[in-house]
Amino acid sequence: MPTVLLTIAYDGTNYSGWQVQPNGQAIQPIVENALGLLLKEQVKIRSSGRTDAGVHALAMAAAFTTSKDLPLRAYVEGANRFLPVDIAIQKAQIVPDGFKPIPMAKSKHYRYSIINSSVRSPLDRLYSWQVREPLDLRLMADAASYFVGTHNFSAFRASNCTAKTTIRRIDSVDITQNETLINIDVIGGGFLKNMVRIMVGTLVDVGKRRFVPSQVEALLREGKRKEAGSTSPACGLCLVRVFYPESLLLL
Amino acid sequence: MPTVLLTIAYDGTNYSGWQVQPNGQAIQPIVENALGLLLKEQVKIRSSGRTDAGVHALAMAAAFTTSKDLPLRAYVEGANRFLPVDIAIQKAQIVPDGFKPIPMAKSKHYRYSIINSSVRSPLDRLYSWQVREPLDLRLMADAASYFVGTHNFSAFRASNCTAKTTIRRIDSVDITQNETLINIDVIGGGFLKNMVRIMVGTLVDVGKRRFVPSQVEALLREGKRKEAGSTSPACGLCLVRVFYPESLLLL
Repeated sequence: MPTVLLTIAYDGTNYSGWQVQPNGQAIQPIVENALGLLLKEQVKIRSSGRTDAGVHALAMAAAFTTSKDLPLRAYVEGANRFLPVDIAIQKAQIVPDGFKPIPMAKSKHYRYSIINSSVRSPLDRLYSWQVREPLDLRLMADAASYFVGTHNFSAFRASNCTAKTTIRRIDSVDITQNETLINIDVIGGGFLKNMVRIMVGTLVDVGKRRFVPSQVEALLREGKRKEAGSTSPACGLCLVRVFYPESLLLL
Repeated sequence: MPTVLLTIAYDGTNYSGWQVQPNGQAIQPIVENALGLLLKEQVKIRSSGRTDAGVHALAMAAAFTTSKDLPLRAYVEGANRFLPVDIAIQKAQIVPDGFKPIPMAKSKHYRYSIINSSVRSPLDRLYSWQVREPLDLRLMADAASYFVGTHNFSAFRASNCTAKTTIRRIDSVDITQNETLINIDVIGGGFLKNMVRIMVGTLVDVGKRRFVPSQVEALLREGKRKEAGSTSPACGLCLVRVFYPESLLLL
């Protein structure tokens, strides 16, 4: 009974998120269905976490156990034949029995993309947030540095977040600019519901000079959600990678 | 009666092309309608050329004459309120009376984007062509160099192309690779129907080692469409910019 770890990319535009929700079409059951058709058995996958409605992924991590023993290539090429154009398995690898995608993840990398322009940009609209006011990236980088480390992120979670602890570790927040986009790359040990999107909403408020950078320090200390920035739109967010210890990926 | 030159960006995915066609929704009438609603008069725009169904633009150039005299900003912000999310006017500028978008264009810049991967890439699918076989970019660059100059491009036009002459000038063809995409940037004086897409289809055949690079020279000399590569998919192509003489843009 091999346990297979999948890397899955998806365009979240048309979905209600990774996990089954009361309304809309979730991504996880579509992947389970495609694997079921390929393997001719019921498949239950366990992921490294959820993504919200409209959030994208380059590399969601999800594992399942199967009684079949296909070549790894078949999980990619075979299952992709049963998946819609906006979801694709990128990679399959064997992991040890008892592999647990959530607790065994070392860290996750999210990227948030912003178009900083007063004019709409039709070709980027599905994968970024358009911010019309000019942003001061230097101030934003100053503010971002306060996030790094282990802090209480209770000011940076959705009101309906049910996590037991709000302590999280952030390894890095890097803000870079290319020809068209501002990218905010956040790597951390784990994330509360909407955490990256509220962090970005707050950084954008700093970029617009509504907050001073040290306001982030106060938010982390005082934990008041209402004092933080708003939740930035889902379409700008993408799960780029989930990191596991190399030792688990050597099979 | 000012003449206004617009720069227009669009996601061509859901359209039958720039110009009105028997089937499907074209882009030009949507822009004319938006300007008509803004200006409360009938507007007829003349563009620098057409784009095929499914082709994108960062900067289509199109001009119109109006009896109104709005501030330039109004043509952008005002008209965009009447345009769908996948079409947006980026810029408006006054040009001399008698400005002719086609003959006065010095050159045009098209970009064609390729994902060279055996696995589907959902987040790039709308704006690139997925080529599964590995491509040899060095051979493709060799082949591309034969396009530069003034040649007979009759091997590189659609069978229903009605242009009177097939002589065209290509200024540069640059092939670059970033993290995810291969971009082929083509700048030239003007283009026949499907010309960039057939050039790219031929370069990809070279990249797959189906053709040797010097085959491009033979195609330009002999002009046989059937000997060239196939027409690459529309979704990979984007009109990046139309260049006009600076002297026309100083008003």
